[in-house]
Amino acid sequence: MITEAREPRGGATLSPMAVPARVSLVTLGVADLPRSTAFYSALGWTMSPASTAEVSFFHTGGGLLALFGEEDLVTESGTLAAVGPGFRGVTLAINLESPGAVDRAVEEAESAGATVLKRPETAPWGGHVGYFADPDGHVWEVAHNPGFPLGPDGLPRLP
Amino acid sequence: MITEAREPRGGATLSPMAVPARVSLVTLGVADLPRSTAFYSALGWTMSPASTAEVSFFHTGGGLLALFGEEDLVTESGTLAAVGPGFRGVTLAINLESPGAVDRAVEEAESAGATVLKRPETAPWGGHVGYFADPDGHVWEVAHNPGFPLGPDGLPRLP
Repeated sequence: MITEAREPRGGATLSPMAVPARVSLVTLGVADLPRSTAFYSALGWTMSPASTAEVSFFHTGGGLLALFGEEDLVTESGTLAAVGPGFRGVTLAINLESPGAVDRAVEEAESAGATVLKRPETAPWGGHVGYFADPDGHVWEVAHNPGFPLGPDGLPRLP
Repeated sequence: MITEAREPRGGATLSPMAVPARVSLVTLGVADLPRSTAFYSALGWTMSPASTAEVSFFHTGGGLLALFGEEDLVTESGTLAAVGPGFRGVTLAINLESPGAVDRAVEEAESAGATVLKRPETAPWGGHVGYFADPDGHVWEVAHNPGFPLGPDGLPRLP
C-alpha cells in the first residue's frame, strides 16, 4: 500500500514512507458560490458534472480547481481562525506559450469580471507577467516564462 | 497563437479566446524560505535545480509548487495589502489511494514538522480525510475519496 510513494512523478522518491508530492486539488474558499462559479465558467473553464450545490469542480491541465464556501472550508479544515482580510499569501499561475497569449488572457479575464492587479509587462528576467484577482481576491498570475518550457499538458517542465 | 485554447485538457474548450484552464504553479508566500524549503524537502519532495536563493520549486504530480518570500509575493503580484492573519481561505489537497495511505501521510508530515489540524477520520460521504499546516499556516488536505479515481499521474479523474 505504499506504491504511491514509488511513482516517478505523482509520488515522492526519497523514501517509501514519504508524503506523495501531489497537488491533487486547489480549493478556493468563496463568499458566494454561484458568483464564483459563473466567473470561472466565464473564463471558459469546464465544470465537472461531479459538482454539487456545495462545491464546484473545474478541470485544469493539472489538478482540479474546487470552489467551496469560505466558512465551510474553515470548519472542514479544522482551522479555528476565520479567513483573514487582505492578500492571502498564495498565488496560482497560468503559464502560457507567448507574451501575446498573456496579454490576451488578462484581457479575457477582465472581460469575465476579474480585477486586473497588474497589467502584463516584461520582467527584467525576460518573462512577461500580469496578475488578476477573482471575485474573492484570490490572485492569479498569467505568465510567459521563456525559461520554463511547457509540456503537452500545458504544464511547465523543469529539470 | 491561440492554439493553447484548443488543447483537450490544458486549454479551455468553449472559446478560442478563453483563458486556458491551467494551474501551472501554486506559489506559497513564506516568512522564512530556508525553513519552508527544509520542510517540503523533509516530506520527501524533489526540489528542481532551477530553484534559486529567492524561490524554491518542487515537482508534484501536477503543476509546480513554488515557495517565495511573502513580502516579495505581495510586491510582485501588485497587491497593496499585506498578508492577512488567520486562515488564508485556500487549501491544497493530496489525494491518495487508500485510507491507510492517508493515515501514514499525515504521520509522516507531522514527523517532518507539520502542525496537524485534523487527524484523519472517515467522513459521512465515505472519504477519509485529515489536514495539516505547513510552517506558514498553509493548509494541506490529505484525502482518500472513493468517488475520485486517480489517474497514472496520481491526480483525480472526474467526468
